[in-house]
Amino acid sequence: MPVNLNLPDLASLLPVPGVELGVASAGIKKVGRKDVLVMRLAHDSEVVGVFTQNRFCAAPVTVCLEHLHNEDGIRALVVNTGNANAGTGEDGLRRAHETCAALAEQLGFEPEQVLPFSTGVIMEPLPHAKIIAAMPAAIADLKPANWGDAAQAIMTTDIAPKAASRKVMLDGQDFVLTGIAKGSGMIHPNMATMLSFLATDAPVSCEALEAVLRYAVNKSFNCITVDGDTSTNDSCILIATGVTEAPVIMDDGDPRFPALRDAVTELMTQLAKAIVRDGEGATKFMEIKVTGGRDETECKQIAYAVARSPLVKTAFFASDPNLGRILAAIGYAGVANLDVNKVKLWLGRVLVAENGGRSSSYEEDDVQLIMDAPEIEVRTHLGRGDAAATVWTCDFSYEYVKINAEYRT
Amino acid sequence: MPVNLNLPDLASLLPVPGVELGVASAGIKKVGRKDVLVMRLAHDSEVVGVFTQNRFCAAPVTVCLEHLHNEDGIRALVVNTGNANAGTGEDGLRRAHETCAALAEQLGFEPEQVLPFSTGVIMEPLPHAKIIAAMPAAIADLKPANWGDAAQAIMTTDIAPKAASRKVMLDGQDFVLTGIAKGSGMIHPNMATMLSFLATDAPVSCEALEAVLRYAVNKSFNCITVDGDTSTNDSCILIATGVTEAPVIMDDGDPRFPALRDAVTELMTQLAKAIVRDGEGATKFMEIKVTGGRDETECKQIAYAVARSPLVKTAFFASDPNLGRILAAIGYAGVANLDVNKVKLWLGRVLVAENGGRSSSYEEDDVQLIMDAPEIEVRTHLGRGDAAATVWTCDFSYEYVKINAEYRT
Repeated sequence: MPVNLNLPDLASLLPVPGVELGVASAGIKKVGRKDVLVMRLAHDSEVVGVFTQNRFCAAPVTVCLEHLHNEDGIRALVVNTGNANAGTGEDGLRRAHETCAALAEQLGFEPEQVLPFSTGVIMEPLPHAKIIAAMPAAIADLKPANWGDAAQAIMTTDIAPKAASRKVMLDGQDFVLTGIAKGSGMIHPNMATMLSFLATDAPVSCEALEAVLRYAVNKSFNCITVDGDTSTNDSCILIATGVTEAPVIMDDGDPRFPALRDAVTELMTQLAKAIVRDGEGATKFMEIKVTGGRDETECKQIAYAVARSPLVKTAFFASDPNLGRILAAIGYAGVANLDVNKVKLWLGRVLVAENGGRSSSYEEDDVQLIMDAPEIEVRTHLGRGDAAATVWTCDFSYEYVKINAEYRT
Repeated sequence: MPVNLNLPDLASLLPVPGVELGVASAGIKKVGRKDVLVMRLAHDSEVVGVFTQNRFCAAPVTVCLEHLHNEDGIRALVVNTGNANAGTGEDGLRRAHETCAALAEQLGFEPEQVLPFSTGVIMEPLPHAKIIAAMPAAIADLKPANWGDAAQAIMTTDIAPKAASRKVMLDGQDFVLTGIAKGSGMIHPNMATMLSFLATDAPVSCEALEAVLRYAVNKSFNCITVDGDTSTNDSCILIATGVTEAPVIMDDGDPRFPALRDAVTELMTQLAKAIVRDGEGATKFMEIKVTGGRDETECKQIAYAVARSPLVKTAFFASDPNLGRILAAIGYAGVANLDVNKVKLWLGRVLVAENGGRSSSYEEDDVQLIMDAPEIEVRTHLGRGDAAATVWTCDFSYEYVKINAEYRT
């Protein structure tokens, strides 16, 4: 079960003026399951995105990158689960294009104004005819209050939907910010390994929105790992409808920019942590902090080495303070000239290691309670600078193996 | 159980003139288990080694690197299981030094002529008094025919001992080559993640022996992964006693050099594969071949991405041909400008993917039998050069999680 994941009160998600959502069942993997989401955006919405760095990126990712360059702007998104349309070559691109064209025709837009998203099994042909057939039902369902249904429709192996919502006050004026995301395996960013859609009604230029997105993703979705596998389909989309009247936030010099950036970052961090808490088979949630590094890159490199180690993750699963495995992971992270005699390691508030080995004050009994808890903080100080980074991850359980051994059955 | 691992006939291992081995019980982890190995080498033996690149390398690794520089040559090795003496700081170095000094005194050598090795739990103080107390029994047991007992004494979570032996004919003269190794978790080289000791009675200069070792390790132990975790203690030692009279092989220009190099490489490959076949929880053995790359580095990078992916490994465990996960791993391996439309993927003899997606000739039924088998070949052709690399790995099972969750109990 998800670790300390408060299920979002889906009914309380704030509608974003300028965004309507509708869901439908296309029967891609399971008959009757809502597996198609359509989002319609107000005219002149600004839409920006970041996508997987996987060379085998999915066809919809390629099409998104094309369509985001169109001059008429994005007016609609279509998402399906059950099939990733990845590793599908030219045929996959054709099917993604046909999906966009069909939705555009039904909504009265140009095909280039539609962004497609898919998640599910790789290397199977996308059943786009089924998706197209489900569009009228999704369109009939379009309404601003549908974020909760949308969060549920994009789930795959997720146990819980991920959604968050808040008001943002910018220079005394209230705006809305709402987002949804899905995990929960093949989670290891660069970019984030998931689908996520956030929208605000604030008016923001494309340039400023890009800056907000990149900052926020780097502090949130690009700080999580479940299994170290970078998906073919990762996409994170940030939408500013601008429906609520206000002067446009043009760039990062606008005094409202930091508040917007921080609100988006906080919401994305909440969604990113929710993905880890609901990681496949997760029973523990770990925050891996690395401080005292020369730069953020080396801090993240060490944090990820610890967060990805199967040996560390199985020890946490077993609540076994076999903490030498953390030292081993720090040691093989590949940071040049790391002086291990300056490295300090804490589990919660307990100093575990210093001077190249176990701390003289360390007693295994002191950490057993910490290991038994569902939330664990691991902190490493490198003693060679002022940079820091934090990565969130979960443990490695029998259930992870089971879920992934039986994924397609 | 180990995958297609023929247990070595320990009685048939060939003694190497100039090498005596003795084992004893120090009671480090389990009372009565043979957990200490002593090797005594003939005067003027050449000894070379490669060691872990982990910055938190174990105290014995540091001491080995020091002692290999001594001018009087190496005369003895001492190995213990049950405790890695890693992550133990200055105190760990002191205990490793005291262990060497004690053995040196009992054998009549200098402390610098002894190499220490440890494997087991990290960050626990080495019980060196117990090891020292067990030395007289190990010394009393010293004999050339003891390679089988030695292979068993260095096991940790290994189910089966790893040992191999052969005659090598160099310019018409027969020499012996015998080696032992242990795995079987925290296996991901750079250098190989294990202990291994090989010896020959051929006379080889230090320089030539170094060249043989580096070549052979790169083709064998540095081509395996079990869990992607690089150990703190990896050590591979190659010994040439020179006891059997012949002109010394001075360098790679000697006509006998290639035959010696290839024999060592073959024996190391056999031991390396045995480590994977007996990887923790292994039920499948996979050979991941990558061809058509620009250089060996990028081929290995992709082979390791596939071999390390928990999603790929769990799919193999389940015999589920969810082969899109292999494409995803190829895609995120980080090879710049990889044109996925040129990538071809085979499982056994079945072409699975080409032109960026599933091959039109591919039928899932064709690969089900291949997936069901205990040995699986995965071949990827990158279509951008002539370089190639092969990596061996095993699957990821419930048993892996169980072994590592309960390692210390």
